[in-house]
Amino acid sequence: MSYKLGIDLGGTKILIALEKEGGGIISSGKFPTGATRGVDSVLDNLASRTSEVLSHAGVSRHELVGLGICVAGFYDIRTRTIVSSPNLPGWEQFPLEQELKKRFKVPVLVENDANAAAYGEYLYGAGRGKKNMVNITLGTGIGGGIITEGHIYRGGGGFAGEVGHINVLPGGPLCGCGRRGCLESVSSGLAIAREGRLLLESGGGDLLRKITGEKGQLTAGHVFEAARNGDAGAARIIREAARFLGLALSFVVNILNPEVITMSGGMAQAGEQLFVPVRHYLKEAAIPPSGDMVSVVPAVLGEEAGVRGVLSLLEQYLKKL
Amino acid sequence: MSYKLGIDLGGTKILIALEKEGGGIISSGKFPTGATRGVDSVLDNLASRTSEVLSHAGVSRHELVGLGICVAGFYDIRTRTIVSSPNLPGWEQFPLEQELKKRFKVPVLVENDANAAAYGEYLYGAGRGKKNMVNITLGTGIGGGIITEGHIYRGGGGFAGEVGHINVLPGGPLCGCGRRGCLESVSSGLAIAREGRLLLESGGGDLLRKITGEKGQLTAGHVFEAARNGDAGAARIIREAARFLGLALSFVVNILNPEVITMSGGMAQAGEQLFVPVRHYLKEAAIPPSGDMVSVVPAVLGEEAGVRGVLSLLEQYLKKL
Repeated sequence: MSYKLGIDLGGTKILIALEKEGGGIISSGKFPTGATRGVDSVLDNLASRTSEVLSHAGVSRHELVGLGICVAGFYDIRTRTIVSSPNLPGWEQFPLEQELKKRFKVPVLVENDANAAAYGEYLYGAGRGKKNMVNITLGTGIGGGIITEGHIYRGGGGFAGEVGHINVLPGGPLCGCGRRGCLESVSSGLAIAREGRLLLESGGGDLLRKITGEKGQLTAGHVFEAARNGDAGAARIIREAARFLGLALSFVVNILNPEVITMSGGMAQAGEQLFVPVRHYLKEAAIPPSGDMVSVVPAVLGEEAGVRGVLSLLEQYLKKL
Repeated sequence: MSYKLGIDLGGTKILIALEKEGGGIISSGKFPTGATRGVDSVLDNLASRTSEVLSHAGVSRHELVGLGICVAGFYDIRTRTIVSSPNLPGWEQFPLEQELKKRFKVPVLVENDANAAAYGEYLYGAGRGKKNMVNITLGTGIGGGIITEGHIYRGGGGFAGEVGHINVLPGGPLCGCGRRGCLESVSSGLAIAREGRLLLESGGGDLLRKITGEKGQLTAGHVFEAARNGDAGAARIIREAARFLGLALSFVVNILNPEVITMSGGMAQAGEQLFVPVRHYLKEAAIPPSGDMVSVVPAVLGEEAGVRGVLSLLEQYLKKL
């Protein structure tokens, strides 16, 4: 038998999936990235955890035919290096493909994580059959992956789909990227939690205060819960986040005219509480022919989307070798 | 010999070009659309002007092997009809391809005008060799055409590239599309002329007043000229228009990561006076890996871009028949 490894290297966690010939994940694992410990530590950890996943399935390293990995960061398709990664300090200019080839002695395919997740949703998830689609990841940050005519669209350097850093509010809140007013700085989980804290500091948000008091450190989830239960301040925060997200998605829709936008990640779990206002603001701002035809729906693959996507890309890559 | 017709059907003018076998435009014509006189009148006019172009070249109708036409409007690639066109009243749901086939009795290819112009610039103009590029038309309105991996990107319905209706200033000036704050409502030639008039009404813009007094009705060109010659109010108008254009282009750059953005149309004639601030604001707002690699340059084909693009598309189409 021959096996393939699919890996999702994120800023906070790493997912590993082992796929048998012909498809089907037979073993998988998930562990913290430990990004602050640096590149070598993460790679060593990745190697030993991969061995665990293999041995758990009774598969030998020699039965591996390839490794596909998606990574949270700007991966330059021209130089095949990670240009930079806000969530993986120290990986700048790192030749990930080359390094993994050396360590695993199999063909390696590298892809940006948002692209891989979009491809997964396109092939197996909520974007199935929709050749022009966009997947938005809503979590601590906001990412985007674009499928055009059934293929990942990467752009000239591999940096396409950076929806999270669309400048929706010039001069607005400071973003992790160092600029002000990116979508991520006003509509991400982090931004919603920040606004929730500001609400409490200003003496508002009684219900939010109660929920947070019961559950510990304030999260975006608490703000959603408080809004759902009638806290007007929390509801305003959610509405503002949805307004900017809908606005940014209207730009995506005007530019790309996708058939569907799928939304994944922790924040998408809020479901219709988030989707209804996002659709409203999107439709308000988009040009009608494109705004009318796009549907905005939850992604369905969850955190598996990236490894599913990258395993399919790996399969195509191996066939071409 | 066999000949092909390339037509650019715009809101104000129609261009006709006759191409001989193997390439090379041997005869062409340009005339007012007369859009207000309605569909039938425009089509009759188109037919008789086409006859003129043919007879001028000594070519018989029977030597025509195909007709390619690009049109200013939302052309639905699924139904092959014009959904709507802000500048061509009465053409809603019009089956242009079918009608022209009937009239000309040759294979007909229809394309959106912004797409055709982008394809022309990609093949023969300032985007040559850049497989991921965007062409922006800056005139009375603002249009966009997208080339991804060397092909026109149309999106799910054919409506992609609507850069002019990106909502850069929600609640801003009324746009021709009926909404408020579209890029077109703050950065087009029409918008700059409007702001120039407001400047004069408010008692400012002495130099602009002088220029307009000498040359007649205020145009965007007058505002550019006044700004170039030190009119502070006019300079502010140009800076604001450039700021919003740079901002909208940063969205395009974040989403598409193009290698080059070409800008055509009357307003692009302002050259570096416009390009310098646009590049500045674009770079300020775009995510660095994409913002650093894109160049923003003048398109070079002028008003021929559309017919050149559509003639190439027609050639590919005829080969596949």
